[in-house]
Amino acid sequence: MSRGSSQSPPIEPTILRSRLARAREAAAGAGTDALLIAPGSDLRYLLGAAGGSFERLTALVLPAGGGVPALVVPKLEAPGYAHVPTVELGVELVTWVDGEDPYRVIADRLGRVRRVAVSDSTVALHVLAFRDVFDEAEQTLAGPIVRELRMRKDAAEIAALRQAGAAIDRVHARVGEWLRPGRTEAEVGADIAAAIVEEGHLSADFVIVGSGPNGASPHHDVSDRIIEHGDVVVVDIGGPIAEGYNSDSTRTYAVGQPRDAEVAGTYAVLERAQRAAVEAVRPGVTAQEIDAAARTVITDAGYGEFFIHRTGHGIGLDVHEEPYIVGGNELPLEPGMVFSVEPGIYLPGRWGARIEDIVAVTEDGAESLNNRPHELVVLGA
Amino acid sequence: MSRGSSQSPPIEPTILRSRLARAREAAAGAGTDALLIAPGSDLRYLLGAAGGSFERLTALVLPAGGGVPALVVPKLEAPGYAHVPTVELGVELVTWVDGEDPYRVIADRLGRVRRVAVSDSTVALHVLAFRDVFDEAEQTLAGPIVRELRMRKDAAEIAALRQAGAAIDRVHARVGEWLRPGRTEAEVGADIAAAIVEEGHLSADFVIVGSGPNGASPHHDVSDRIIEHGDVVVVDIGGPIAEGYNSDSTRTYAVGQPRDAEVAGTYAVLERAQRAAVEAVRPGVTAQEIDAAARTVITDAGYGEFFIHRTGHGIGLDVHEEPYIVGGNELPLEPGMVFSVEPGIYLPGRWGARIEDIVAVTEDGAESLNNRPHELVVLGA
Repeated sequence: MSRGSSQSPPIEPTILRSRLARAREAAAGAGTDALLIAPGSDLRYLLGAAGGSFERLTALVLPAGGGVPALVVPKLEAPGYAHVPTVELGVELVTWVDGEDPYRVIADRLGRVRRVAVSDSTVALHVLAFRDVFDEAEQTLAGPIVRELRMRKDAAEIAALRQAGAAIDRVHARVGEWLRPGRTEAEVGADIAAAIVEEGHLSADFVIVGSGPNGASPHHDVSDRIIEHGDVVVVDIGGPIAEGYNSDSTRTYAVGQPRDAEVAGTYAVLERAQRAAVEAVRPGVTAQEIDAAARTVITDAGYGEFFIHRTGHGIGLDVHEEPYIVGGNELPLEPGMVFSVEPGIYLPGRWGARIEDIVAVTEDGAESLNNRPHELVVLGA
Repeated sequence: MSRGSSQSPPIEPTILRSRLARAREAAAGAGTDALLIAPGSDLRYLLGAAGGSFERLTALVLPAGGGVPALVVPKLEAPGYAHVPTVELGVELVTWVDGEDPYRVIADRLGRVRRVAVSDSTVALHVLAFRDVFDEAEQTLAGPIVRELRMRKDAAEIAALRQAGAAIDRVHARVGEWLRPGRTEAEVGADIAAAIVEEGHLSADFVIVGSGPNGASPHHDVSDRIIEHGDVVVVDIGGPIAEGYNSDSTRTYAVGQPRDAEVAGTYAVLERAQRAAVEAVRPGVTAQEIDAAARTVITDAGYGEFFIHRTGHGIGLDVHEEPYIVGGNELPLEPGMVFSVEPGIYLPGRWGARIEDIVAVTEDGAESLNNRPHELVVLGA
């Protein structure tokens, strides 16, 4: 019953081999004896394997030391991993059948360990079973280890994110086809979701259509509110492409000329804030400095209390991953890091606005992976 | 960025209240001080809340004793839970913002506890954080507790599963439109996936098109194999409807008259085995007796070694849940239990066949929620 990972384009074995080697080094450096990576984006990053079922354990067992890595898979699900180049990667494929204890198999394989790290997305069902068989070892998270690798994208990953960005730009270019007075947010959202797939995504992972007062709730998705002439509408959309990398872009629209006279001035502040943050991006600058660049513009204009979330989040195989562009994050940016720059201004009970582009850090600045105009898009004006 | 749970039809507060009360009783009976239920099917069952994001903690905190239950949600995601009737349910809504420690908030709320149970689908990121704040308590799984409730479906749940069954039956009725020689399994699978949505599912969760030798791998999904005249093809498909309940049904097709002369005789054995298992279903009979009913027929006919999986699995908000219809499971069936009956015969390198219906245990037998004919469907004959 596994979702076919066959649809996912293969990743060069040389790239996967290097990722596995760096993961083992990072694990050793963190004093971890082994990484136990269950299905999820870490496994996809390390082996190019998507999918995987919930109840039966599938895990990449990656010893930090010299041991041979293993991909432990239920025999029935092994065909779903046939595309993983285990031989070239030096990974042993170990299958198990109902009645066997895969946790014990892994524990016996690793022998005596002091610390094992499970991937952040491993479900409790498996986390607690691992804790029982590794009862003398400390159990930690693999996320902080693998994230160090995933945060620094290679050219192929950035190319995939560029492709995802272009696909979601094509959807934003068409929003005027669906966003009209008299329709509900849900109706508009359904049309947008279909277009997200039409324009090259595997699925529409999230569709936020926040009209009027709903736009003031940053995580509002859609509702049965009927869109009215003069509404300001936040449209925040994205999804994964076949390679597994995600798009995520927000534009703010007005259905006819905005009812609220304050919109033009406030929106101009938001544009300046978003631009200031993107222009601040370059290697060596810290994540919190990017957040501050946007926040300062908004605060100086008197809207600080209405910018109620961080400026951005990393994006890749997960929609939200490191680096987080937030106050307190002193991580210096490096070429290959990719994240959203999405300041917003939310006026409770009235309306909200957000501009979101995904940017990739380059040798000397930033490349924006979204390229739709930033102006408030006035529809049917 | 939460997937909208707004699309999910509401569940009667009286039903949810009763589920919460029974869950607390079951937790107390299991010597557990509190259940910590993260987003997933357990949370959907107990609160009617779907969706929920990965990185920020959302959890239902359900004390076994007299304490007030709480739904702990990131403030930004609270709108996604606005439909939960917290007041009628006596559940306190507790929101948190970035910078706060939701695990500590929950630990302080519960005070001194000896044992806390986390839902099986809680990701390691949260499981380990809970372990740190409840460092003196035993951490166990909530699954075995909640499953006792979820395994016994009420009338509304069975009605939803009946609706899902009828929807997937409509898809099987149309398979002849797409399954033709010269097309790849992947092409046929894509058409079936679209029809699964057209016929009333939210998504196509799995689409197995196992043609010829591929049919001998029970968990094969689709491939680029080109379907040939005379192939036997296993089609195993399903997905969730808006209420969250899943369909899952398998039929076996032949593209023209089967090439292999053994098909007719072998398939007749499979039909008898599936019928024997369904006819054995009634309250008081054990799960393993249902497995044995199918297995005996197949083994007596000399195909025992080619029936390489359990006879069935429970189904509901999860595609695979209790009760599992497998040797060793001495659970006596009760009215309201719903599971698949799906024996198969797999001849390596040649072809495979499987017949799968979802059945609900009634007062005196079984109701089949799938009602397509069981015969081998010979297409374009």
